[in-house]
Amino acid sequence: LNYQFFDIYDINQANIQLDRGYLFGDGFYTTGIINNGVFEHQILHQNRLIASAAKLQFGSFDSKSLFDFIQQNINSVKHACIRITVSRAQSKRGYAFLDEEECNVCIQLSNLTNVATNYCELFFANTPISINPFLAGTKHLNRLDNVFAAKEIKNSSQECLMCIDELVICGSKTNLFINLDGTWLTPSLNKAGIEGITRQRVIGLMQEQNIKIEIRDINKIEVNQCDAAFVTNSLIGIWPVSKIENKPLATEMTDNLKCLLNFER
Amino acid sequence: LNYQFFDIYDINQANIQLDRGYLFGDGFYTTGIINNGVFEHQILHQNRLIASAAKLQFGSFDSKSLFDFIQQNINSVKHACIRITVSRAQSKRGYAFLDEEECNVCIQLSNLTNVATNYCELFFANTPISINPFLAGTKHLNRLDNVFAAKEIKNSSQECLMCIDELVICGSKTNLFINLDGTWLTPSLNKAGIEGITRQRVIGLMQEQNIKIEIRDINKIEVNQCDAAFVTNSLIGIWPVSKIENKPLATEMTDNLKCLLNFER
Repeated sequence: LNYQFFDIYDINQANIQLDRGYLFGDGFYTTGIINNGVFEHQILHQNRLIASAAKLQFGSFDSKSLFDFIQQNINSVKHACIRITVSRAQSKRGYAFLDEEECNVCIQLSNLTNVATNYCELFFANTPISINPFLAGTKHLNRLDNVFAAKEIKNSSQECLMCIDELVICGSKTNLFINLDGTWLTPSLNKAGIEGITRQRVIGLMQEQNIKIEIRDINKIEVNQCDAAFVTNSLIGIWPVSKIENKPLATEMTDNLKCLLNFER
Repeated sequence: LNYQFFDIYDINQANIQLDRGYLFGDGFYTTGIINNGVFEHQILHQNRLIASAAKLQFGSFDSKSLFDFIQQNINSVKHACIRITVSRAQSKRGYAFLDEEECNVCIQLSNLTNVATNYCELFFANTPISINPFLAGTKHLNRLDNVFAAKEIKNSSQECLMCIDELVICGSKTNLFINLDGTWLTPSLNKAGIEGITRQRVIGLMQEQNIKIEIRDINKIEVNQCDAAFVTNSLIGIWPVSKIENKPLATEMTDNLKCLLNFER
């Protein structure tokens, strides 16, 4: 099995096999949290990896043996961030891959950085998001657009919004929800962006509680007009937005929603 | 210096440092040919790497020391394909990078595969090309769209054309030139695609010879109506197109152009 496990202290001195993950970004990943030996929402991360493997035609990916391997390694881990990267091995030159190609798996633990998560200030990134209807939604390894959007974030803000012209898709490391005229909306991700696990959980919980949630195209004007907003990811959960560009936003509506959904990260 | 050199026989057993190249596709590359110890069109490859480093903000990239290192290693190489990959090291978690981050360089030699290069049959790929005006033109490591387009190529064709809806941008591993009503055209690459070294050379040689060449948007209808076409890359040079979808094309116009330009790979 081509599994490599890197503990917190290994992160800067780790070696991996030279493969198509490095050469072309040919692979996928997920990022979550370990708490007292438990992988938070493990089944959702496992399902995401299975769906990504199917999408990117990783025929040899075996999620069961992978998660058995992970469990053996995290039993004694108190609190850490875990990233699981699955990449395609390389046995011939060129872009096209062989159907039977093996996969490499790289599991990295790292310390959780302390981010102030009670509120988040947003701005519109200049870096455009990469558009590809085939790849949209999948957490694959082609993330240069996120890299350069995240690089735009200075000390005065915590996150930026990535757009296709006037269409708002997501944050650099989060998904977006806004409340407009009493209705919660979140951008559709059929052209670009990543379908986050927390996004999926929030949508599911809202539907269970009969709270209306629309998944549709959202433009900058609507984002500027919204009455409340929050962004989500697996490390922070629901992150209330207190400002978009120069417009302050109250976070009560988000705090109430979190209560109503009985939401914990 | 973080240089790693892999000879032809190492290709399947090479190890590299786990870095942002693998994690996010945060890096760039070039692919060329070594002939009797000489790197063909080395200065163009070197300039491409310098331009990519500037674009992707690799402040610590030093092309002079890299090419000195390469020359020492290729003196006795008869005939090989060379790929040079430059990726960003990782010293903290997350998408954003540090300005002073080091770079890793991976140099791989491989055997040149024998492809029939006297003609090429093309079709329109179903896989959409990734659109990003900021990244367009650069040979960066986010190449999943090329991977899945190349995977569509079956034995009956040698290359496919990647499109944005009706707009034709390039081949999966080549740039495109067509002749329409007596004028040579090549697609502009301001939304997607890679500015190939051979494309650049061909455009330059045509301009020197006062042969009209237009760089502009080209749609599928124009490609279907063209009188001649060729595709280009560093490994093959000028590759005459003998068929697009079901329409046969004569290759004489391309053969004549090659003669006129005194073009050698």
